[in-house]
Amino acid sequence: MSDAAMLSIIAVRGLGEVHPGDDLAADLARCLGSDAGDAALQDGDVLVVTQKVVSKAEGRLVELDHADEAAKVALIESESVRVLRRRGSLLITETTHGFICANAGIDLSNVDDGTAALLPIDPDRSARRIRADLRRSLGVEVAVIISDTFGRVWRQGVTDVAIGSAGIVPVLDLRGTEDANGRILEATTVCVVDEITGAADLVMGKATGHPAAIVRGCPTAWFGEGSVVSDVVRSAGDDLFR
Amino acid sequence: MSDAAMLSIIAVRGLGEVHPGDDLAADLARCLGSDAGDAALQDGDVLVVTQKVVSKAEGRLVELDHADEAAKVALIESESVRVLRRRGSLLITETTHGFICANAGIDLSNVDDGTAALLPIDPDRSARRIRADLRRSLGVEVAVIISDTFGRVWRQGVTDVAIGSAGIVPVLDLRGTEDANGRILEATTVCVVDEITGAADLVMGKATGHPAAIVRGCPTAWFGEGSVVSDVVRSAGDDLFR
Repeated sequence: MSDAAMLSIIAVRGLGEVHPGDDLAADLARCLGSDAGDAALQDGDVLVVTQKVVSKAEGRLVELDHADEAAKVALIESESVRVLRRRGSLLITETTHGFICANAGIDLSNVDDGTAALLPIDPDRSARRIRADLRRSLGVEVAVIISDTFGRVWRQGVTDVAIGSAGIVPVLDLRGTEDANGRILEATTVCVVDEITGAADLVMGKATGHPAAIVRGCPTAWFGEGSVVSDVVRSAGDDLFR
Repeated sequence: MSDAAMLSIIAVRGLGEVHPGDDLAADLARCLGSDAGDAALQDGDVLVVTQKVVSKAEGRLVELDHADEAAKVALIESESVRVLRRRGSLLITETTHGFICANAGIDLSNVDDGTAALLPIDPDRSARRIRADLRRSLGVEVAVIISDTFGRVWRQGVTDVAIGSAGIVPVLDLRGTEDANGRILEATTVCVVDEITGAADLVMGKATGHPAAIVRGCPTAWFGEGSVVSDVVRSAGDDLFR
């Protein structure tokens, strides 16, 4: 791949609280216009938006008594096709999308008491909609990634990964590319959307609540078609640990 | 945590080929001095250096006939304390450091024919040495991360993660922090070194061979003590999938 020499990661500010039925793309456009300084959206930018505001805008909120463990488990199971592991109140499940994560990706933080935020039904579609709306409203050709926070099997600490995308190739295939010594590269399908999403989290933060960030300067070769669910989710047949 | 409003990710250019016994920190310092433009190293920068050049400089190269599968498997096993899965020529093992990754992290690309690059013996120590040497040679106070490329259990494509660090807190603990609604955050230990390392890979690339990158603009609260092996590697007792 042709690499960028320099990238910028820019927090998007001023979105405010999001409610069910809000036009999220319109609200984002107001934070990304020509008067937004560094956050003024440009052709070739990648806009990363957290799942939480997408889920809220799409009305993916359900009532949940946070102290009711049985209700919580029932909700997690209803969002899952399989439970892989249970330890105490922690369930590792496969969601209806195919994501394997804690508690089916259901979010109890940064939502009102008595509610929980489910994952978007089709996060790739959510990304496509935001992308198309921003093209219409701001006249810019950008990629959009929906992010969520996942744990990792063998490493402490969470990181943000992509759960949906539009306008970007999620996994770059470098197989057949020669390395600097002329050897054909081996493990060379790079999940660029996850690296971009983790980068964006560095300016979004978990506590301060900036729900979007721009990654600017990605090479044009990274832009194109693809879907996180189709291209990033590993099929059960390829999975050595399911 | 106090979040950055904007980060820059800058490729480090001009390092050239690295050989066993080279003074890598001195070679890096030549690419990071005051005449290096955007890559002139500044206080508060995070310098990410790929495992491959660290392993080469530390002489962690062994002879290996790349076509000899039995020799390859024997080498992988010699660098591992446990084999978790085998599928064809792919082994998922636990390395002597505790990393769980493909083929014990042994690298066959970007090395000469007939050789393989093993992981550094103590990548945290490698990072500490580079950090101390850069402080002496350039007079800057920076953090250093050693990166490597790992696959993920349930997601296609590799990403770069940290295998060693110095001068940065690998996993930020936000437990007890309140979110924007005043609720105590739940899954809130963030592996910031992995997010930084993935971000750096976006400008390093697998094929073009830029072996280092700078991440500039991280909040001062992220700098401090810690080690990837101590703080990021999950203990077997906490592991639901070993």
